[in-house]
Amino acid sequence: MPVGLDADQISFDAQGLVPCVIQDWRTGEVLTLAYMNELALRRTHESGELHLWSRSRGELWHKGATSGNTQAVRALRLDCDGDAVLALVEPAGPACHTGERTCFHRGDTEATAPHEALPALERTLDQRAAERPQGSYVVKLLDDAPLRGEKVQEEAEEVVRAAREETDDRVDEEAADLLFHLTVLLHGRERTLADACEVLNGRRR
Amino acid sequence: MPVGLDADQISFDAQGLVPCVIQDWRTGEVLTLAYMNELALRRTHESGELHLWSRSRGELWHKGATSGNTQAVRALRLDCDGDAVLALVEPAGPACHTGERTCFHRGDTEATAPHEALPALERTLDQRAAERPQGSYVVKLLDDAPLRGEKVQEEAEEVVRAAREETDDRVDEEAADLLFHLTVLLHGRERTLADACEVLNGRRR
Repeated sequence: MPVGLDADQISFDAQGLVPCVIQDWRTGEVLTLAYMNELALRRTHESGELHLWSRSRGELWHKGATSGNTQAVRALRLDCDGDAVLALVEPAGPACHTGERTCFHRGDTEATAPHEALPALERTLDQRAAERPQGSYVVKLLDDAPLRGEKVQEEAEEVVRAAREETDDRVDEEAADLLFHLTVLLHGRERTLADACEVLNGRRR
Repeated sequence: MPVGLDADQISFDAQGLVPCVIQDWRTGEVLTLAYMNELALRRTHESGELHLWSRSRGELWHKGATSGNTQAVRALRLDCDGDAVLALVEPAGPACHTGERTCFHRGDTEATAPHEALPALERTLDQRAAERPQGSYVVKLLDDAPLRGEKVQEEAEEVVRAAREETDDRVDEEAADLLFHLTVLLHGRERTLADACEVLNGRRR
């Protein structure tokens, strides 16, 4: 369980509520905006799973209790003036009642942000592995461990050469190729970039 | 400017407001929770810079107008029931009035999430480059372009070997090493992982 927040640090509003931004611990994707009251915060601390206050139903809401898509809370943060909470969670499944991964699936969803690229790539690899479309380069790599290794080494050489003597665009292209093939290599071992990022975080402590 | 959102898709509350989660386009960091009304949304669309409604001052709030830390809006998304907005922005400076990068700098800030690792690494590299502490391995790398290249190729070989025949922990360690040295290599060319991620996003379109 996270260290958490004391309720007395929080400026609850006149209805006793505080808005809670729910963010995916691994990917950084914003999943949902919901509300907590003091009871929801206490239940979250006690259980380690996200509890909210449903404004429409006027009752405590154990996120995912019905669907099974609970959210394990890894960290709770508070903003500068104490009137908004950020919950970093590991979701067991889609956050949205529509079955979408995030509730924020309307509007500019075509404009993909840089931070969304690698999680999207990992989802694509999962999908290709499941569906195995004919002629897919990813499927070819997923079936050929030595080729995965060769590609990582080849792309490493190419990004080094680009960094030494080529244009910025070429550096970006080759770095993208290396990130792609590293992600595929890890996928072949059922590891993710997030696992490697946990190692990097451990080294900073 | 983003495609944006029509005001009539949004369920404003009784005060004519909708909460707006502000997220960093490049890093995914959640910066601020604030509020918009219809005027703020219109001004955001017109200017391409984030406009909010200050509940405390009861006035339109052009984010960063005073400090210079404006936020260019890259995408506006809406949640499933239309009562929360997600603004993906490129901030010109710290989001918080305290000078912190994000308003969510209280509570569990020690627990660093996987998605936070690579942006934190890039900030560390900037800091080392500016402060140049004696005996720093990063400074040594930043001063030696051929060494940066050698390390990327060496770590690529090692992660390939680990993926072939070593434990999961070793795979994660070596993947972390490669990500670290790739980030340093890019830094030496004043490029970032986000630049490479933009390439990956471009290939998905």
